[in-house]
Amino acid sequence: MSVMTETQPGSGPAPARAPLLEPTYEGDFVLDGPLALESGAMLAQPTLHYAVYGRLNTARDNAVLVCHALSGSALVGTWWPEIFAPGAVLSLDHDFVICINMLGSCYGSTGPGSVDPETGLVYGPDFPLVSIRDNVRAQAQLLDSLGIRRLKLVLGGSIGGMQALEWAIHDPKRVERAAIIAVTPLSAMGLALNHLQRQAIQNDPEWDSGYYLPQRPPRQGLALARQIGMLSYKSATLFDERFGRNPNRNGENPWELDDRGGGLIGGRFDIAGYLDSQGQRFIDRFDANAYLAILRTMDTWDPSNGYASPREAFKNIRARLSFVGISSDWLFPPAAVREFAGTIRATGVDADYREMSSSHGHDAFLAEQAELVRLLQ
Amino acid sequence: MSVMTETQPGSGPAPARAPLLEPTYEGDFVLDGPLALESGAMLAQPTLHYAVYGRLNTARDNAVLVCHALSGSALVGTWWPEIFAPGAVLSLDHDFVICINMLGSCYGSTGPGSVDPETGLVYGPDFPLVSIRDNVRAQAQLLDSLGIRRLKLVLGGSIGGMQALEWAIHDPKRVERAAIIAVTPLSAMGLALNHLQRQAIQNDPEWDSGYYLPQRPPRQGLALARQIGMLSYKSATLFDERFGRNPNRNGENPWELDDRGGGLIGGRFDIAGYLDSQGQRFIDRFDANAYLAILRTMDTWDPSNGYASPREAFKNIRARLSFVGISSDWLFPPAAVREFAGTIRATGVDADYREMSSSHGHDAFLAEQAELVRLLQ
Repeated sequence: MSVMTETQPGSGPAPARAPLLEPTYEGDFVLDGPLALESGAMLAQPTLHYAVYGRLNTARDNAVLVCHALSGSALVGTWWPEIFAPGAVLSLDHDFVICINMLGSCYGSTGPGSVDPETGLVYGPDFPLVSIRDNVRAQAQLLDSLGIRRLKLVLGGSIGGMQALEWAIHDPKRVERAAIIAVTPLSAMGLALNHLQRQAIQNDPEWDSGYYLPQRPPRQGLALARQIGMLSYKSATLFDERFGRNPNRNGENPWELDDRGGGLIGGRFDIAGYLDSQGQRFIDRFDANAYLAILRTMDTWDPSNGYASPREAFKNIRARLSFVGISSDWLFPPAAVREFAGTIRATGVDADYREMSSSHGHDAFLAEQAELVRLLQ
Repeated sequence: MSVMTETQPGSGPAPARAPLLEPTYEGDFVLDGPLALESGAMLAQPTLHYAVYGRLNTARDNAVLVCHALSGSALVGTWWPEIFAPGAVLSLDHDFVICINMLGSCYGSTGPGSVDPETGLVYGPDFPLVSIRDNVRAQAQLLDSLGIRRLKLVLGGSIGGMQALEWAIHDPKRVERAAIIAVTPLSAMGLALNHLQRQAIQNDPEWDSGYYLPQRPPRQGLALARQIGMLSYKSATLFDERFGRNPNRNGENPWELDDRGGGLIGGRFDIAGYLDSQGQRFIDRFDANAYLAILRTMDTWDPSNGYASPREAFKNIRARLSFVGISSDWLFPPAAVREFAGTIRATGVDADYREMSSSHGHDAFLAEQAELVRLLQ
């Protein structure tokens, strides 16, 4: 229950493991030249913000790449600490762990909030569509600059898993193993959920077609988008266990009229108070245009894009792949992850499927890290 | 696939069966005096808009009450025509069918768009919370005025099923049988979905705390609320079959930038085009304050409200109850409907459970009426 506890109103972050999880280095890498994007557009000299943990050994064969999910950052030690626990998946004594912020994000890499060197203006809504493959191609330049020719493991959940698989396809000689957690190309339901989140932002009175001032962002729209997302990251079972039909714990009564608008609005149930607080927390740490940029990156990903067939896309993979489904995940249902793994295995790739049993929904790869560790060991 | 076909952009309503399905009478019933509400508020002389089909026999023992769902109207012949098909559930030759628009709605009964006789002003957001039980108590006065002492059947799906069960509890001597379709008290996930829909409306630039002008309603907010609702009424399987990852059928390309906002928005997938068209259709026929009023009616319903225990609530039921779950319904999952029926049966009530096998999700009771008819026969 770690994340549910962590994300309760008023509670702090997970127990500090800071001494272990300080990055060895955190900084920026600026690409040599422009990055030509799959969409046909171009990013002039984009920056990748990244963090590394541990040290690269002299054989340069101990590198692991961790790819973050939608609203994550390069600081994997803060959001996936249990992966580094003694005897878990990664070891700071033996591994050199790299995590790179996605293009489009607001955590240091070039995104809608960055200045376009070509115009001297902030990109804002004119930021181009950056695909998962574009991200991998940019990340490869950073690894080249670090002298990393082999990755013993690439892993990630959700959109991080999209990157992990794309790495195995794009750079087959570099990747030994990839763990692809709770992800497939988005289903129609997944596309629908992203579409609603987009509209929540665009309907905000402060949206202004994306040209909002940093001081007046579409906060309520982004908060609603986050709440829609939260539904898809959690499970109905977890919500029932945790919130049920209880009135909001602050004392509001859903059966009473209140002065916020007659009978139409009224007091909230506990689940509503939880979602509101999740939305409000999110708007203090994320940017609406960055959110939209990454939703599109996610929407458009299909590893077969640009190949004559799925077989063509997968045939060059050399890595051992492990796919992980989560039993209660309804955004990326386990049956779909299993089928996706099967499709790839059928092209001759070494791909296994493992399933996490959890009531946490999609978020289980963050909420029940110890379970995930057991599965990946 | 009738509803999915019916609700496709540009298509018309279901095949006309108008000659059979004209109501015998459609009109208004004005309550004698004020309706004291469970919330403690009062509605001064509310109106119930209703429709009847067929004729009441001289024994007055052929009356059936149909209760509509969230956005339905009294004209049950237009939205549930197959229930009236020869040999189906209802017969216009033998039954006297009544359907009454819910309080709070915008289809003729008193709601937020009505004038409060006490103030001479439109209620708007000051419309009070009207519970399911309040609706049943008002409807009972209408039945009294028609001389109907027995209901051979009360039936409804979703919020209509809430009313059907509440009828069996509130007026046990009048109800012989009740069919309660695809409903339980809302789960935490259901409450969450309603909470998001509320916010979608409240975030609209035209919302104005609910005091919007009829000429300038919060259209985009209501459209988004409807789209959030649509996700919960359909199933992921249906969406995959129908839309998959196809680009929008109007020719938009999700992989291309467009001039609506750089890379952040871009071309839509087919599911997004479908949802947008559903939202746009809805705002031409429904009012945002009415939507909010009925969401609250739905949120607050638990038949045990006001009773010492569920047993106390259910012990007086004399009707035979049939509960129907829908295999792919994730708003009111079939396991929850089955459990709810079991809880009521455990108090000594004659209650059976039946399950519709359908990929249509919650909407199956409207989308696959022939299946429902088979189950209810």
